[in-house]
Amino acid sequence: MTITDIRVEDSYPTRIPDDARSIPRQDPTVWGREDDGPMDAATLAAHDERGFSTVEGLLSPAEVQHYWQELVRLSSDEELKADERVITEKKHGEVRSIFEVHTISELIGVLTTDPRILDRARQILGSDVYIHQSRVNYMPGFTGSGFYWHSDFETWHAEDGMPRPRAVSCSIALSDNYPFNGGLMVMPGSQRTFVQCVGETPDNHYRASLKEQRFGVPSEDDVSSLAAECGIDQFTGSAGSALFFDSNVMHGSGNNITPYPRSNIFLVFNSVENTLEEPFAAGRPRPGFIGSREFAPLSR
Amino acid sequence: MTITDIRVEDSYPTRIPDDARSIPRQDPTVWGREDDGPMDAATLAAHDERGFSTVEGLLSPAEVQHYWQELVRLSSDEELKADERVITEKKHGEVRSIFEVHTISELIGVLTTDPRILDRARQILGSDVYIHQSRVNYMPGFTGSGFYWHSDFETWHAEDGMPRPRAVSCSIALSDNYPFNGGLMVMPGSQRTFVQCVGETPDNHYRASLKEQRFGVPSEDDVSSLAAECGIDQFTGSAGSALFFDSNVMHGSGNNITPYPRSNIFLVFNSVENTLEEPFAAGRPRPGFIGSREFAPLSR
Repeated sequence: MTITDIRVEDSYPTRIPDDARSIPRQDPTVWGREDDGPMDAATLAAHDERGFSTVEGLLSPAEVQHYWQELVRLSSDEELKADERVITEKKHGEVRSIFEVHTISELIGVLTTDPRILDRARQILGSDVYIHQSRVNYMPGFTGSGFYWHSDFETWHAEDGMPRPRAVSCSIALSDNYPFNGGLMVMPGSQRTFVQCVGETPDNHYRASLKEQRFGVPSEDDVSSLAAECGIDQFTGSAGSALFFDSNVMHGSGNNITPYPRSNIFLVFNSVENTLEEPFAAGRPRPGFIGSREFAPLSR
Repeated sequence: MTITDIRVEDSYPTRIPDDARSIPRQDPTVWGREDDGPMDAATLAAHDERGFSTVEGLLSPAEVQHYWQELVRLSSDEELKADERVITEKKHGEVRSIFEVHTISELIGVLTTDPRILDRARQILGSDVYIHQSRVNYMPGFTGSGFYWHSDFETWHAEDGMPRPRAVSCSIALSDNYPFNGGLMVMPGSQRTFVQCVGETPDNHYRASLKEQRFGVPSEDDVSSLAAECGIDQFTGSAGSALFFDSNVMHGSGNNITPYPRSNIFLVFNSVENTLEEPFAAGRPRPGFIGSREFAPLSR
């Protein structure tokens, strides 16, 4: 290696030609301390160990109802369907996700500075934070398709230029999560391993990847090893519960043939000390509605 | 209606042009009594109520190992892959099912007269029984695709000419069933409702239907109503456990993106008092390896 080899500076190289390896994480999972927010020492320790933590009833039943109506309103807004931030189901054309929803919906925007959410994100990341990405996800009953195993950070690093895994996602369930309606599966502890992915990122890959992932996909061997080491947990719980999970946790979801739809609000907080650079493994950054480049810290 | 209207004699008309209805079942679920076999009165009553019952550890760990090896042997038999009784995965060409496996494999043949299985089947159906269908199912890890909601009896009635729902299936798990690796979902009590399906059965429909169901599919409205009435249970449990379920129970399975494959042996027992006639809603019967026309009763 020479001083000009850019990989020297990249702790998490990915989208490589072949021979993907699993690299130990170089960074903490929890950056803050007990005094910094609402999570007590035991909760923080568990989050550090497993890479995620759940909060039952973060939203009250009345709030769930309120936000559910907002999701219905957004998904039936015909004008909005033409917006590039709205992703439709490959097969049936129904709305599957709406990105940058915290700026589209005032109601959801308010959630980003709600102390129940913001204070936890700040505490986990040990700094001020901003929204890297926000979206609502609709998984319809009967035809909801899942998402294969992946680390969000792998993509955010490769395609958005996020330097380190110092981001945390908050997923708020707006419908009940059963074991059988496509709920999120996570591998506890997997955030401590960065799984390299094979394959050069094509230009404008993001358009297709939002519907079906073809790059940034770990090998079956690596998924098997990680599952053997970590096991698999599934996020079940009532509407209103929230899951905070590390950006590098290996996760995925199955499809949903039940009549029960599954919807959630998804907010990604990134540390202001971890703002985006040039993509580490892609030609140019994805659009701002997928990986924001406005780094002003959130305040209550 | 006139005396020549054949539908007058069919208690379970299906594959109709439109306006599918849900018809109350005309027949018992449990035909035998406590004295007739190993299931006690409470177990029989629960089976009658829910349409299924489970037996933990029906096969011992050593037997599971033995049968697992047999499944591996069968699925890697290249000669067998050319057999029409072997169904391969649509996307990847791997073996998904082997039909009439009780005649292909001596080891599996023995199971059909194993008292732990045969005596329960006889007791539930209240008569001598024969094998209507047998198969092994392989759901691979990562890429296993599920099966949409259906009643087996709807198909056996329409396409095989089974007069009444007096058949019971025994599914023996050869791998652990988690909530998240595509385990069978059943609607308890749904066997009491016959859900008509819309659409005329095309000729030789069975070839495609073994990979993906397009006819004999209940409407989303009917699935929703039934789920609202019955709820959804999921069959989880260790390798070696067995599920006995009524031929008319509404059931289905999701896909499997976990590394954990799911394999089972599936034996369908039909009453010798319920032998096949002409198909009730198809041009000609399906081949014998899918719906047997040899009705000799099984004996130990």
